[in-house]
Amino acid sequence: MSKPSLARGTRDFGPEQMAKRNFIFDTIRRSFQRYGFLPLETPAFENLSVLMGKYGDEGDQLLFKILNSGDFSGKLVAQDWQEGYKPLTTKISEKGLRYDLTVPFARYVAMNRGTLPMPFKRYQIQPVWRADRPQRGRYREFYQCDADVVGTDSLLCEAEIVLLLHDILPALGIIDFTVKINNRKILTGIADIIGAHGMEGPLCVAIDKLDKIGKDKVVEELLERGFSGESIGQLDPIFNLSNEDEPFTELSDWLAESPVALKGIQELEEVWAMVKVLGLEHAKIEFDVTLARGLSYYTGAIFEVKANNVQIGSISGGGRYDNLTGTFGVPGISGVGISLGVDRIYDVMEELNLFKDAQSTGTQVMVSNFDEAAFTFGLSILPKLRQAGINSELYPDQVKLKKQLDYADRKNIPFVILIGSEELNSGLLTLKNMKSGEQQKLKIEDIISLLTAAS
Amino acid sequence: MSKPSLARGTRDFGPEQMAKRNFIFDTIRRSFQRYGFLPLETPAFENLSVLMGKYGDEGDQLLFKILNSGDFSGKLVAQDWQEGYKPLTTKISEKGLRYDLTVPFARYVAMNRGTLPMPFKRYQIQPVWRADRPQRGRYREFYQCDADVVGTDSLLCEAEIVLLLHDILPALGIIDFTVKINNRKILTGIADIIGAHGMEGPLCVAIDKLDKIGKDKVVEELLERGFSGESIGQLDPIFNLSNEDEPFTELSDWLAESPVALKGIQELEEVWAMVKVLGLEHAKIEFDVTLARGLSYYTGAIFEVKANNVQIGSISGGGRYDNLTGTFGVPGISGVGISLGVDRIYDVMEELNLFKDAQSTGTQVMVSNFDEAAFTFGLSILPKLRQAGINSELYPDQVKLKKQLDYADRKNIPFVILIGSEELNSGLLTLKNMKSGEQQKLKIEDIISLLTAAS
Repeated sequence: MSKPSLARGTRDFGPEQMAKRNFIFDTIRRSFQRYGFLPLETPAFENLSVLMGKYGDEGDQLLFKILNSGDFSGKLVAQDWQEGYKPLTTKISEKGLRYDLTVPFARYVAMNRGTLPMPFKRYQIQPVWRADRPQRGRYREFYQCDADVVGTDSLLCEAEIVLLLHDILPALGIIDFTVKINNRKILTGIADIIGAHGMEGPLCVAIDKLDKIGKDKVVEELLERGFSGESIGQLDPIFNLSNEDEPFTELSDWLAESPVALKGIQELEEVWAMVKVLGLEHAKIEFDVTLARGLSYYTGAIFEVKANNVQIGSISGGGRYDNLTGTFGVPGISGVGISLGVDRIYDVMEELNLFKDAQSTGTQVMVSNFDEAAFTFGLSILPKLRQAGINSELYPDQVKLKKQLDYADRKNIPFVILIGSEELNSGLLTLKNMKSGEQQKLKIEDIISLLTAAS
Repeated sequence: MSKPSLARGTRDFGPEQMAKRNFIFDTIRRSFQRYGFLPLETPAFENLSVLMGKYGDEGDQLLFKILNSGDFSGKLVAQDWQEGYKPLTTKISEKGLRYDLTVPFARYVAMNRGTLPMPFKRYQIQPVWRADRPQRGRYREFYQCDADVVGTDSLLCEAEIVLLLHDILPALGIIDFTVKINNRKILTGIADIIGAHGMEGPLCVAIDKLDKIGKDKVVEELLERGFSGESIGQLDPIFNLSNEDEPFTELSDWLAESPVALKGIQELEEVWAMVKVLGLEHAKIEFDVTLARGLSYYTGAIFEVKANNVQIGSISGGGRYDNLTGTFGVPGISGVGISLGVDRIYDVMEELNLFKDAQSTGTQVMVSNFDEAAFTFGLSILPKLRQAGINSELYPDQVKLKKQLDYADRKNIPFVILIGSEELNSGLLTLKNMKSGEQQKLKIEDIISLLTAAS
């Protein structure tokens, strides 16, 4: 009998963490619904043919693969074993765990496009799994909360994402945040303008790190990635423009020769204008020409959200992609989406002490258990409490009162009803406030009124 | 580019199914909380050392096993491949997917027993995975909803489970149901009385099938399992007692010589009495001496719930176990639990047409999109609708009205706001009821009042 342990990189969520996490999930879900997004859930595992090749080589490595059931090795020959683990994997495993919510969503849209109302707005809140090396703040199982609209090019969707973030984060208590925005078309235009046509991929990867490694290191990396000194020299405006508010005129001058860049700038301007009509005069949005995000499938707007004044990475990110389902043989479905990271949001809220408002769903009142007579009386009042919507429980064992009160304390139960022989005779029950220690003698009807008002 | 497909035995849940499923989950969760159960979530995968050997040989086979990451085969030699898939599995896989919620719960209790308030009441609503052969109504991924109390022998817990079921099922609209109850101790006593001491295991497995295969087949199976004709002959009272209401006197007479059986009967009598004090004069409970349930870890009460007048198997089951965490080196923790099967409950509710009450969380009103002026006006009213808690969306593209109304229809959106040039001039918006076709001209404030009242 070995001591049991958790699988590496995974966590249990006990009652206290669950209350906090559910507060986050419920807040996000409510906002998603208010914006007309509909719920979707997909299976935890997918055929590997759906998952492989969608996340790059590194992603393929980080997929958790499920061993085929039954005699998975019976039909293999010696050569199969000797070829190495990669080809071998395809022979003994056909399924993998969900790595993100986007690819299963794309699969769903491709399989159901005939019956979905288009544009299709869906939200999805489910765990994903990655065989990453676990470290502080990085887990092998974590939740994503995604909202996407597919089947329309309208920039309304981008503006709505900005608005949605301004709904969700303040509802969680996160007031001081910045939504950074860029447009992938601008990055494409920059590559053209500096004479590095088609190299926006490596350009993005490098300048995306500007925040973390600084200008000199970015220049070094660009040289390594094959950009000429002349090209890099022309990038100066990037380093000066970044983090300014809406510097679209300056940018348009610099990129005047690139139609694609001008299109990107125009899209941003439209989003900015719509956000204002949507009532956000003082939107916490910031144009950041260095924002690139690693994922190569973005084709228009790119978003990233940071909580200010905390040392925690971005809590949300997303963008527009032109060809969500192309890889599944269904081209031409454009969309835009946003993903919120619950674990990072949780950490931000802990650091800023924002969980005080998280509603407890725990027991509101415990009925104590002295002896048979009190127990039977306690049984008879339980249904009344619960019918009034009060979360309540009767202590199951007849043990010392101290032990029962300790239990209530540890479970953060705010009130205890004491029923002794005196209470049974008088019909007045003693209600003990566990925080203040105060005790009142009340009829059960009055206790119910009091607890209903307190919750 | 192959056509994508779902992994065998798994399902997507689109918006309509999600609304119905969430209605079930929310109802169950609310009742669990009202009874003082606290939420717990455990990881999707566990170390195989935690899972293996807990579900019998068949269960071990049905565990989905996760291939080790990286070069899982690099250190293996030819002999490892030749030994067959079972020993090989242990060399290339260390983790498996959750098979039920009980074993992870036991692992959690064993790991955290020092800090948990005892008795510990937890609920857990999560999917589980089994590599079963998929068939109608049987899936490889399905949700369980479990509530357990551990750390007390009090029969209050059994009575509370009966009460809880009488809360949850009517709240779902399922009025006509039966909670079958038995006690494992009675089965142990019967084995003693018929001269088959210690054989309650095979006895249970056989008589558990009485419902499905009838008396003759059960007798046949008992003979095969080594029971003597004489023993089987003494079982007659079982076939006559079954499904009667509280026939405890008759049973006590038959089993008078077995102390363990009498203990079991006494426990049932106490539960029956408590249920009455808890307000259920006409509880839908039924003693069934043939109820055994396959799982060998039950030691006291056993429960099973059937919805009557539908051809769907049991929708809930559970019981008391004496030694939840013994297998993890922590003996002496007794508990009792109940598990609800969401898929079967869903099927029952579909068959009885009970989802009409399921609250929609979809869009309540869509704002149409005619031209730029209407679009901008639509943008400005969206925040007002949402601040009033009304789920709302603006159609993103300027296409024909028919297409927009079709979209609203397919999404079951009950109201559409029409904004044309007339509306822009008069300030009165047209609110169209999509069900009745009726149109009214109203100020936005009046639309908000009307929609708030309608939801």
